[in-house]
Amino acid sequence: MTTGVRRRMGVDERRAQLIGVALELFGRRSPDEVSIDEIAAAAGISRPLVYHYFPGKQSLYEAALGRAADELSGRFLEAHEGPLGTRLLRVMGRFFDFVDEHGPGFAALMRGGPAGGSSRADAMVDGVRQAAYEQILAHLQVASPPARLELVVRSWVSLAEATALLWLDGRRVPRAELELRLVHDFGALAAVSAAYDAETARIVLRVFAQEPADGPFGDLLGRLAVLLPDMAAVPPQRGPGGRVQRLL
Amino acid sequence: MTTGVRRRMGVDERRAQLIGVALELFGRRSPDEVSIDEIAAAAGISRPLVYHYFPGKQSLYEAALGRAADELSGRFLEAHEGPLGTRLLRVMGRFFDFVDEHGPGFAALMRGGPAGGSSRADAMVDGVRQAAYEQILAHLQVASPPARLELVVRSWVSLAEATALLWLDGRRVPRAELELRLVHDFGALAAVSAAYDAETARIVLRVFAQEPADGPFGDLLGRLAVLLPDMAAVPPQRGPGGRVQRLL
Repeated sequence: MTTGVRRRMGVDERRAQLIGVALELFGRRSPDEVSIDEIAAAAGISRPLVYHYFPGKQSLYEAALGRAADELSGRFLEAHEGPLGTRLLRVMGRFFDFVDEHGPGFAALMRGGPAGGSSRADAMVDGVRQAAYEQILAHLQVASPPARLELVVRSWVSLAEATALLWLDGRRVPRAELELRLVHDFGALAAVSAAYDAETARIVLRVFAQEPADGPFGDLLGRLAVLLPDMAAVPPQRGPGGRVQRLL
Repeated sequence: MTTGVRRRMGVDERRAQLIGVALELFGRRSPDEVSIDEIAAAAGISRPLVYHYFPGKQSLYEAALGRAADELSGRFLEAHEGPLGTRLLRVMGRFFDFVDEHGPGFAALMRGGPAGGSSRADAMVDGVRQAAYEQILAHLQVASPPARLELVVRSWVSLAEATALLWLDGRRVPRAELELRLVHDFGALAAVSAAYDAETARIVLRVFAQEPADGPFGDLLGRLAVLLPDMAAVPPQRGPGGRVQRLL
C-alpha cells in the first residue's frame, strides 16, 4: 500500500531508489524469481515507469550488481595496523556479513544467474576479485608479487568465495568458524608455496615474523607444531646443523 | 572440402560425430565464437542436417558438455593402491591434461559461457564436482564425513578449478608444479581443519600416517617442519609433557 500523495523524485534519486529496491529483492531471492512488476510494486511506482529508468530487468540487475560490487569492495578496506591475521579476520567478518545479507543473490550470481554470460556482470565480479587481491598485496607490502605468490593470493580469493557458497548451502558450520578457517587457510596456502619457492618464502617469512603468538596465525602455528609431527610416519627431514631441533 | 562419396551414418553415429566435432570446436575457442555453420562444415554436412539432430546450438553445446563431463569424471578414477599423495598427483595430472585439451571451453564454462544460466549445464558442472568429491572420500575411506571434512574436500575441489583457470590465463607457472601444489594444498587445508577439529584430526592422522617420507605429503611435512618454526615469532606452544620436543 502506498499513500495517495507521493513526492516527485529527480531522475538520479529515482534510479538510486530502484537500484536499492532491486538490490534487496535480488539479494533475498534468486534474481530469476524476481519480476519487474514486483520491483515496481516495492518501489511504489508503475511498471512502465520502471522501464523509463531501466530498459529491462538485465540493465536494472547490472545496476544493482554494480552497487553491490562497490559495497563489497569497500568492505575489503582495512587499516594497516596490528597483526595481519587479525586484519584479515575482520575483513572476513565483513565479507560474511555481505554474504549473509545478499545470500541468494550472491549464490545465483556465482553459480551463473540471469546475468550469466553477460560480460558486464562478469567484469564486475572480476573487479571485486581484483579489489580483494590488491588489498591483500597492499597488506603484505608487496608491489609486484612473484607469479607463485600471485597465484596463492588469487586462488585463496576463490577459496573464500567457494567457502561462502558452501556455507550458504545448509549453514552447517558456524560462520565465525569459517571466517577464522579462511584466515588459517591463507596462512597454510602461503606456507605451502613458501616451502617450495624461495622468493615467496622471503616474503612470507617477513610477514609472519611480525605475527603474535596469540593472533590467528600464531595460534595456528602453535597447533600445527603439535599436529604435524603426528602426521608424519617417519621423523621429519632435518636441515643443516639439526635446524629443526634448534628452532623448536 | 569433402569427398563426393559419403557413407551414410546412422542416427546415433551421426549424433556422436556431431558431439565430437562440437566438443573439439567448443574446447578450442570460446563457445560463443563457434557457429552452427562452422560445426556443419567441420562435420561435412549441411546446416539444416545439424538442426535435424540438435534443435539448436544450446542443445548441441549441452550434449558436448555432457560428454566432456563424463570424460572428466572418468579421469578421477584411480586405483586404491599406494600412497594417497601419489594417487592424488596422478589424478591432478589427468585433470590438467583435460584442462589443457579443452582450455578455452573449460574457461568459458567456468566463467559463465553461453550455457550460463542453463540449469542443465550447471547441473553437469555440479555433477563433476560431486564425482571428484566422492572419489576423494572413497580414497580417504570415509563414508559419511564430518561437516568440516566435507567442507575441506569440497572447497579444495573449488581451489583446483580456480587454480586451473588461473593457470590457463597466461600459463606463467609450469603445470607440473601446480599439479603438485594442489596435492600439497589438499594436505595443508586438511591439516588446518584437523588442527581445530578433533573428529577431522582422527581421520587426517590415520590417512597421513600411511604416507611415506618421499611421497608428496611426506616431502611437504619435512619442508614445513623446517619452515614453520621460522614463521613463528615466538616459540611454539607445547602440548602436555613437551610433546613437540619428543616428536621432533
